[in-house]
Amino acid sequence: MPLTVYEHTGFPNPLRIRIAAAEKGLQDRIAYRHIDVTKNEHKTQEFLALNPSGLVPALQLEDGAVLAECVAITDYLDGQSGEADLTGRDARDRAVISMTQKRIEDGFLNAVGTYFHHATDGLGPDVEIYQNKEWGEKNRERAEAFLVYLDGLLEDRIYMAGDRFTVADIIAIAGVVFAGFAEIAIPTNLENLTAWRDRVWSRPSVTEALQAA
Amino acid sequence: MPLTVYEHTGFPNPLRIRIAAAEKGLQDRIAYRHIDVTKNEHKTQEFLALNPSGLVPALQLEDGAVLAECVAITDYLDGQSGEADLTGRDARDRAVISMTQKRIEDGFLNAVGTYFHHATDGLGPDVEIYQNKEWGEKNRERAEAFLVYLDGLLEDRIYMAGDRFTVADIIAIAGVVFAGFAEIAIPTNLENLTAWRDRVWSRPSVTEALQAA
Repeated sequence: MPLTVYEHTGFPNPLRIRIAAAEKGLQDRIAYRHIDVTKNEHKTQEFLALNPSGLVPALQLEDGAVLAECVAITDYLDGQSGEADLTGRDARDRAVISMTQKRIEDGFLNAVGTYFHHATDGLGPDVEIYQNKEWGEKNRERAEAFLVYLDGLLEDRIYMAGDRFTVADIIAIAGVVFAGFAEIAIPTNLENLTAWRDRVWSRPSVTEALQAA
Repeated sequence: MPLTVYEHTGFPNPLRIRIAAAEKGLQDRIAYRHIDVTKNEHKTQEFLALNPSGLVPALQLEDGAVLAECVAITDYLDGQSGEADLTGRDARDRAVISMTQKRIEDGFLNAVGTYFHHATDGLGPDVEIYQNKEWGEKNRERAEAFLVYLDGLLEDRIYMAGDRFTVADIIAIAGVVFAGFAEIAIPTNLENLTAWRDRVWSRPSVTEALQAA
């Protein structure tokens, strides 16, 4: 078993790994282990020995080394087969995709996550040991404003970073899934964003990842 | 003039670009333009047309295209000369460096920044239009705890991501500079971290970047 992904199956960040792996045709090389975050299984000594940050997902390589942080794991997977279409074929392509991914992370995925963990019950009182409700609500506003920005971005392109599907789309998919958990809807008047969602949701990699959830 | 960097000279994130550019021998190809963030020059129509996120630094390429987000800009610069030593020579090397950079961003640079902007006067009342003091103080605690983690990380290596200087060191340098602004000191008992700081501060790229500030 060459690669092991530790994940809370169905959670937004782990979905990013499943989608990237499927896009690269790597699913047969990966075994998945469920770490139940709602039961604090990511805080056990055993898991912290694998990933000191206590975050899922984490990817264990053949030799036992562990990679964490989705941006690093998806980058690694993109290098395992074919051209690096998900993260960029040359320095400029990489930079545009990386910039777009980072903006979506800060403005959307992290904003939704902050709202969810701080201003809702989140994963429950055993997990959400510190909450700052005002900060959470502020981040809901940020996330909603960012959806309008994304709709504008999609005015002249069909994918988040340009004319093909990349990690910038993958992180935005995770954001939309997380927004669903947090009961933040995409307003129907954001037509470009709605069309993008329909487009990417029909990809086999996305369908498969969501079915596993 | 091939490349233009828009920056608030001396601020932590812009330093990352100056250090990366100097490491790659690209300083002669770059012109710097000062955007005074304390006067909200990053919120002008003119600057927002360049970078809709309103963040410095931003890098304008020869053809007018603009790259933003330090992680993307430093990645781009690393591709402009020699081997990609700062960001990684192969998929695995890239992933380890990217993971380390991301951890330092979340746990240190962003935590210090959140403390500075939310729990101190930050850049003054005209810039800091929303503050959440409790969240700021919480992030000071996070940053201080992360320094202990970094000291442990450096137990078995001389640079943040392994045996050579990379973007993981560069982001940590920005974190230390920002911590200085925010009056968060590195405790002297963190000997590995203190030795790392002495080591990287003596690099010509770092000396030069700090002198420009």
